[in-house]
Amino acid sequence: MFTSKNLLPIAEAKSPFFAGIDVGGTNIKIGLVDNDGRPVAYESMPTNVSQGIEAGVERMAAEVHRLGESIGMPSSAITAVGLATPGVQDVPAGILIEPHNLPGWNDFPIRDALAKACGLPVTYANDANAAAYGEHWVGGGQGLKSIVLLTLGTGIGGGIIIDDRAITGEHSLGAECGHIIIDSRDDARYCPCGKQGHLEGYASATALIQITQEALDAGEETTLRTRTESGESLSPLMMAQEAEKGDALSNQLIMDTARYLAVGITTLYHTIDPEGVVLGGAMTFGGYDSPLGRKFLEQITSEVRSRVMTILADKVTIEYAKLGGDAGFIGAAGMARVDCQ
Amino acid sequence: MFTSKNLLPIAEAKSPFFAGIDVGGTNIKIGLVDNDGRPVAYESMPTNVSQGIEAGVERMAAEVHRLGESIGMPSSAITAVGLATPGVQDVPAGILIEPHNLPGWNDFPIRDALAKACGLPVTYANDANAAAYGEHWVGGGQGLKSIVLLTLGTGIGGGIIIDDRAITGEHSLGAECGHIIIDSRDDARYCPCGKQGHLEGYASATALIQITQEALDAGEETTLRTRTESGESLSPLMMAQEAEKGDALSNQLIMDTARYLAVGITTLYHTIDPEGVVLGGAMTFGGYDSPLGRKFLEQITSEVRSRVMTILADKVTIEYAKLGGDAGFIGAAGMARVDCQ
Repeated sequence: MFTSKNLLPIAEAKSPFFAGIDVGGTNIKIGLVDNDGRPVAYESMPTNVSQGIEAGVERMAAEVHRLGESIGMPSSAITAVGLATPGVQDVPAGILIEPHNLPGWNDFPIRDALAKACGLPVTYANDANAAAYGEHWVGGGQGLKSIVLLTLGTGIGGGIIIDDRAITGEHSLGAECGHIIIDSRDDARYCPCGKQGHLEGYASATALIQITQEALDAGEETTLRTRTESGESLSPLMMAQEAEKGDALSNQLIMDTARYLAVGITTLYHTIDPEGVVLGGAMTFGGYDSPLGRKFLEQITSEVRSRVMTILADKVTIEYAKLGGDAGFIGAAGMARVDCQ
Repeated sequence: MFTSKNLLPIAEAKSPFFAGIDVGGTNIKIGLVDNDGRPVAYESMPTNVSQGIEAGVERMAAEVHRLGESIGMPSSAITAVGLATPGVQDVPAGILIEPHNLPGWNDFPIRDALAKACGLPVTYANDANAAAYGEHWVGGGQGLKSIVLLTLGTGIGGGIIIDDRAITGEHSLGAECGHIIIDSRDDARYCPCGKQGHLEGYASATALIQITQEALDAGEETTLRTRTESGESLSPLMMAQEAEKGDALSNQLIMDTARYLAVGITTLYHTIDPEGVVLGGAMTFGGYDSPLGRKFLEQITSEVRSRVMTILADKVTIEYAKLGGDAGFIGAAGMARVDCQ
């Protein structure tokens, strides 16, 4: 598989080419991608948020052209640019409104500024939707006509792709799947967004750590205690290690996470009815390469099968993502490609 | 407003025309609709399920042409037919697979059979999606670019329209919104589909009656008891009457229903992010025309506003449906119109 670390030689690539840009709080990932979704050039550069959004846009535009030159590709070979950003956006208007991890980059017409700076059409997207498009195009959801991507990490992000298009939502807040309600009772857990009962308040890394700390505080027996008392901080990785060594509490709480995710995925089947669901992010416990990762996925799948309408049970398809941190820029390039068709 | 009972005179109609057919377990509703979604001819005929699906299809085709003749419209003026059916379907293949309320009408290529019988292109849809399209086109969701319709009755049906298209789903099970999970705990209520925690197990008429019966059995004080002890059967209508006369329990349980619906609608905002949500069906307590109906809608709206991500709170738009039982055939005609564009 071709990735940002294993680029396709330009001589083997299939034109036309598209640039994909994935803006994060720390780094901006920029790649050139061929018509089959294979990266042929890639660079990650510091976001340098404090220099301001206009300087950021100029650097992105310059990097798109520099990347082309670096592999001997004329600027004219790049057909369009896909730009993905986090935070609150107005996607149709191309405006970055309020990105929490990009302080000061507010209320700026980033799409049109970038188009002007690089002289190319720019397709603008939410970063989670871009990642979902990437996984749909050439990742864990390849071959599935419609997918939901859940990105499981500190929080829970989501992207929905149907008929080769992202569900952007009317207020550019489509596929905020971390905020699906899974528990509506008065004592439901709180989500970091401040509201109760949302999936992210149960199944994110943050939630797992909180739930585990509560179990430790309640005096439950677990080998995690030895490690936290020696000064280590609780983490999903530590829990995965202890679970693999046989710690019952770690195993139980990780499988509870699978159950919470299954509730949210069941609701997604009953609204979107996608051909498949793809799970990415660090909270996949090693994914297909680890026994715990495989057990986690089996647990989620079997829970979803038991919770969906009977007619759907044998149609449930849940896969791990394949593109890792490359999904955003590859997907952004892919969304630009769709807009050119 | 023009409806099946208040038809637009043909002289005022705007061509082209489309036929819409809404197949139910008891009746088949057939209408001719103009290019602005206004019915110009209408007939409801018994489904006669026992005569078989092939006879049903022949009667639908004949009725489409008879309706045209009845208002002096040449057959050539009808551009296409929209056909909506209930039950399990394969929408892209045009096959009615397993309609629970049409016994024997199984595994039949109804779309192509109807196209052959009436000599016109046929667009095939799920009846709930057709109703959603109707409300989006000329009903309670008119002017909203994307909507979710929830049909609240014995069960809870759903339809999602984005960019003038229904979310059909990969297994033709999109927008089964009655099966959104609102409670994931082990003691959650059961849905008629047999699974736990689904919205329909809490907020349908069936669920409200069950919940109320449980309260009666538990000895709660309520004026409903006088009526049930005199032989009347519990019903949402009876509860509405008692609530309006001041019965605290009836009022409380109806407002609980609003709260359950709000949980499901919150989840829909966090997945679809529609411009608005439209509520139809008998479980709307008289709708805009009744004080209780208005209070019910206010309660749902305020609950959704308190549960969604803060940024969405002032964007929440929930309306009652306007087309009643006409939504299905008007929407089916509208979906045929979209396919012809």
